[in-house]
Amino acid sequence: MIIMRTPKGWTCPPQVDGQQVEGTFRAHQVPLPAARTDGTHRAVLEQWMRSYRPEELFDESGRPVPELLDLPPTGTRRMSDNPVANGGSLLRDLDLPDWRAYGVDVPNPGTTSHEATKVLGTWLRDVTRRNPSTYLTMAPDELASNRLQDILDVTGRKWQVEEGRFDERLDRQGRVVEVLSEHICEGLLEGYLLSGRHGAFTCYEAFIHIVDSMFNQHAKWLQASAQVAWRRPLASLNYLLSSHVWRQDHNGFTHQDPGFLDVVLNKDPSIVRIYLPPDANTLLSTFDHCLRSRHYVNVVVAGKQPQFDYLSVEDAALHCARGAGIWDWASNRDDTGTLPDVVLAAAGEIPTLEVLAAAAILRERLPDLRVRVVNVVDLMRLLPEDEHPHGLSDRDFDTLFTATQPVIFAFHGYPWLVHRLTYRRANHSGIHVRGYKERGTTTTPFDMVMLNDLDRFHLVMDVIDRVPALGASCAGLRQEMADARLRARTYTREHGLDDPEVSSWTWPG
Amino acid sequence: MIIMRTPKGWTCPPQVDGQQVEGTFRAHQVPLPAARTDGTHRAVLEQWMRSYRPEELFDESGRPVPELLDLPPTGTRRMSDNPVANGGSLLRDLDLPDWRAYGVDVPNPGTTSHEATKVLGTWLRDVTRRNPSTYLTMAPDELASNRLQDILDVTGRKWQVEEGRFDERLDRQGRVVEVLSEHICEGLLEGYLLSGRHGAFTCYEAFIHIVDSMFNQHAKWLQASAQVAWRRPLASLNYLLSSHVWRQDHNGFTHQDPGFLDVVLNKDPSIVRIYLPPDANTLLSTFDHCLRSRHYVNVVVAGKQPQFDYLSVEDAALHCARGAGIWDWASNRDDTGTLPDVVLAAAGEIPTLEVLAAAAILRERLPDLRVRVVNVVDLMRLLPEDEHPHGLSDRDFDTLFTATQPVIFAFHGYPWLVHRLTYRRANHSGIHVRGYKERGTTTTPFDMVMLNDLDRFHLVMDVIDRVPALGASCAGLRQEMADARLRARTYTREHGLDDPEVSSWTWPG
Repeated sequence: MIIMRTPKGWTCPPQVDGQQVEGTFRAHQVPLPAARTDGTHRAVLEQWMRSYRPEELFDESGRPVPELLDLPPTGTRRMSDNPVANGGSLLRDLDLPDWRAYGVDVPNPGTTSHEATKVLGTWLRDVTRRNPSTYLTMAPDELASNRLQDILDVTGRKWQVEEGRFDERLDRQGRVVEVLSEHICEGLLEGYLLSGRHGAFTCYEAFIHIVDSMFNQHAKWLQASAQVAWRRPLASLNYLLSSHVWRQDHNGFTHQDPGFLDVVLNKDPSIVRIYLPPDANTLLSTFDHCLRSRHYVNVVVAGKQPQFDYLSVEDAALHCARGAGIWDWASNRDDTGTLPDVVLAAAGEIPTLEVLAAAAILRERLPDLRVRVVNVVDLMRLLPEDEHPHGLSDRDFDTLFTATQPVIFAFHGYPWLVHRLTYRRANHSGIHVRGYKERGTTTTPFDMVMLNDLDRFHLVMDVIDRVPALGASCAGLRQEMADARLRARTYTREHGLDDPEVSSWTWPG
Repeated sequence: MIIMRTPKGWTCPPQVDGQQVEGTFRAHQVPLPAARTDGTHRAVLEQWMRSYRPEELFDESGRPVPELLDLPPTGTRRMSDNPVANGGSLLRDLDLPDWRAYGVDVPNPGTTSHEATKVLGTWLRDVTRRNPSTYLTMAPDELASNRLQDILDVTGRKWQVEEGRFDERLDRQGRVVEVLSEHICEGLLEGYLLSGRHGAFTCYEAFIHIVDSMFNQHAKWLQASAQVAWRRPLASLNYLLSSHVWRQDHNGFTHQDPGFLDVVLNKDPSIVRIYLPPDANTLLSTFDHCLRSRHYVNVVVAGKQPQFDYLSVEDAALHCARGAGIWDWASNRDDTGTLPDVVLAAAGEIPTLEVLAAAAILRERLPDLRVRVVNVVDLMRLLPEDEHPHGLSDRDFDTLFTATQPVIFAFHGYPWLVHRLTYRRANHSGIHVRGYKERGTTTTPFDMVMLNDLDRFHLVMDVIDRVPALGASCAGLRQEMADARLRARTYTREHGLDDPEVSSWTWPG
């Protein structure tokens, strides 16, 4: 590499109007601002242009002379045709192990638990091993915190300088890049993808905002480069966001921000994808899909704490292919030929848990109520089909969510985002969204959902408030729910833990 | 200042289970993870705790011994009560010149032009002069580009090291901090505000995303600190965003991103404010308000290119106090006692221009059509009154925008943001929003609005499509509008400039 340092505006008129231009800030952009109207400036401009001796560089027709045309290299030695600058031309599929072999057994939904990202880590370990020169994981010192440490069984953290006496798992050829700078992680990964390889960036959800602007530019680049015929598609930029807003039990308010999704959704629909897998097997299926995809930005938000398993590998594959679907085992009296009284929808790990717990309460206490439970993994399904390639048709949306019945939607992020996605749907005014409304602190998991009215008890209250046939006739149950919230809050304040009645709940089957 | 560097986990058990802990990563967070269940770990924990000799530090009741209680300083010498750490207690109002004296004359709306931020710069120059120790302007090398260079008439750019031969306007005591790092600008300004002083940060609109995460944390800090009784309110954090999405004629797609507004709106409504003044006088009035406010984040988006003046200083003051209001001089047959056939609403400099040009076409071509023109300066007015302190009541909103008539809303930013703000309004399904939908490139101003269907001709087409009484009966006018778009695009492609018919348009009065 040759680095040449030149004066700013080198070879431009040294002075204009008696002021130094060459080598100063005045050479920025327009050194002769008055050339259009001022004869002196125009003369200086002409003199400047002539100083390059165009008569020696071009022939009569304006074509560069042969001596110049012979200079540039040809073929892939041209800078613009260097394969590394068109990484898609070098890109090869990853050798991916079958994710189903890494899935967890789910004898009954909502009873066994796993750390979803820990399970994903076992698969990523083998992705890393099988693709030793084409797959990297980036992490801002959060690989183990996000439970992906199994990758370190087959590689080390990339490290080129001295090792301390007690350092561990450092490796000059390491396939994990850990550096506590989200900017560096993002920049290195973008470069790696642009040069025709694959990777993922795992980050605390709140802190991925640090690279908002870099993400914006990468998404713009993908959108613009897709219009250039000779540019080949790149591997997608995959974000795995964990340590999310709902489980910052120790870190608190500074670590609670699910707003990266809002930033991502402003970019072109042909480029961006958002997934909210609710358990380990759906996370495996989702990430397998992401690592096979091309020229997207995939954002996956997943939990790292022990959380229920809901779907077997087969069911997870089907559910993720659908993107959004009914969980009939969790629904109640959602019979063919009759509309449900209410749709309980969830997108995200914690909202899914609370919706299921609410559905269980409703099934027990209002057994005649027809409740449809819908789970959304692929958030883009909510958009109209003419606004996003994954968007559901109005017919499919209205079939799933109904065109008329109240929908209580428990969402992982800021609640208005769901409105933004669904405002064109027939049933939009019937969709009532609960999500994170910037109410946070250092507290227990259930206290966090209560602070934002996303908890099971409040969801039951929402159902009572929104289903016309309930309302005043369910005042007693509604009051019980309000009391249950108060009891749970009091328990948290007294014990510093969630009430075991809440934290030991399992799906009743 | 004393800086002491200690080993990580200094004084914790040096080894646990035969592995070095003190001075290594194992001392992070929980050095004895098994202390609850493992007797050996628990014994090590007890030995560790006893190593601090608690019997010498506390008396029988658990109270620190008098020798310790005598150590801490008292009053404002306590770290927590140092006034600089509670900057609001030191905060004094700025000495602000009357902004009206800096306003421009507006003999007729939409005929004379000014660079709005240049006009603001004359006022900020005198704000800077009058408050030489309590007001700073931060800019990432964009002060002059954003047209605030008049401030440099009374101060220089802060600079502490060597000066080059051709450097200008550098000053050890400078009141302008220019450094090409949005992070540093933001960080220095936050520190300045936290220690009880005032300031503003001017930035290219697209690149303020660089500090999304820092903004998030500052907003969270303001929200949380407002709950602490002894903390006094700070001066607001004021952003002046210019060089915005619609006027990146030379820079293009990388510089086109109005999405900071979406990030800001995720934060607590008690903290955030967004203003979109359409001309010079409304910008002056808005910024005067911002510099008087406390404990907010104010985001002001304004133009720097020559743009029409619409409101006199008196009218600007009234309009900004209202936040959103009818421009009766631009409306047509919006008579008392009759609903308008359509509401044309605008928020932002360029949308206001296009809405007025559309209103002029409608007035000329469909003189019987009742058209109400509404301008929104204070974006929070669109929110319900129970969601934001500035929110309009439903009654006021329905009076202004009607509860039944079609609303064509031309918006500065991403169009879905207006839906997010208005989805609870009675007329929400009647609100049709045009805005930036991530269609950008390096092109002329009018080509940019055409790319995003925000241009005057498309707005007229939207009116024809949405007003039931028009539609097929106006097919001829609709076709003329489509043709006008094609003509304008062709002209741009041929001449590299906008069609003078468009660019020299003025309000017909």
